[in-house]
Amino acid sequence: MANSELHENVILELRRGVIVLAVLSQLDEEQYGYSLLKRLAEQGLEVDQGTLYPLLRRLEAQGLLESDWRIAEGRPRRYYRISPAGRAMLPALKSEWQNIVQAMERMFKAQTEDI
Amino acid sequence: MANSELHENVILELRRGVIVLAVLSQLDEEQYGYSLLKRLAEQGLEVDQGTLYPLLRRLEAQGLLESDWRIAEGRPRRYYRISPAGRAMLPALKSEWQNIVQAMERMFKAQTEDI
Repeated sequence: MANSELHENVILELRRGVIVLAVLSQLDEEQYGYSLLKRLAEQGLEVDQGTLYPLLRRLEAQGLLESDWRIAEGRPRRYYRISPAGRAMLPALKSEWQNIVQAMERMFKAQTEDI
Repeated sequence: MANSELHENVILELRRGVIVLAVLSQLDEEQYGYSLLKRLAEQGLEVDQGTLYPLLRRLEAQGLLESDWRIAEGRPRRYYRISPAGRAMLPALKSEWQNIVQAMERMFKAQTEDI
């Protein structure tokens, strides 16, 4: 694997885990795929369609999202929003996220002190 | 899937992405699998062996870690440390991590303001 490709893969892997949390946190207000993609990017999380769209379908299959088709601007769009089950899971996910962030801060700090 | 199992899977998914960064940041000082596992747990990141050990082998195959076997406490152990290529990648990964943390903070903030 070329070095730049490896680099890109490791970055994508790092980002992938948080996308579920990002998506659930942003779907209080319903969005169709592309509007959600733009919203995530505006807030600093670049996700490509090939990652986001299958994830939306999976989260719906898992019962964490709900969706329906609607005609908007003359074309059918599938609008997603968080389900009651997704909403119920969100506080625990956010709390785990805070734990992870704190753990990483501790590790970086420990590493600096080693040097 | 039972609700608690789904919950557990989403948590694991959230954690998985950061494990590569955590491992690279902790292998300045060489560690064998189990000592690394304990070190990560002490700093608040619980990872199971079934996740960590294959990851160590993959990161070595990708050239980001180096390892050798040594006899310690009467048994062979494989000691891992970060490679020069891993070390070269670390600043960019940390920087991407900071971007992700900031993006998530913005999203949670935006969500609170919506309510």
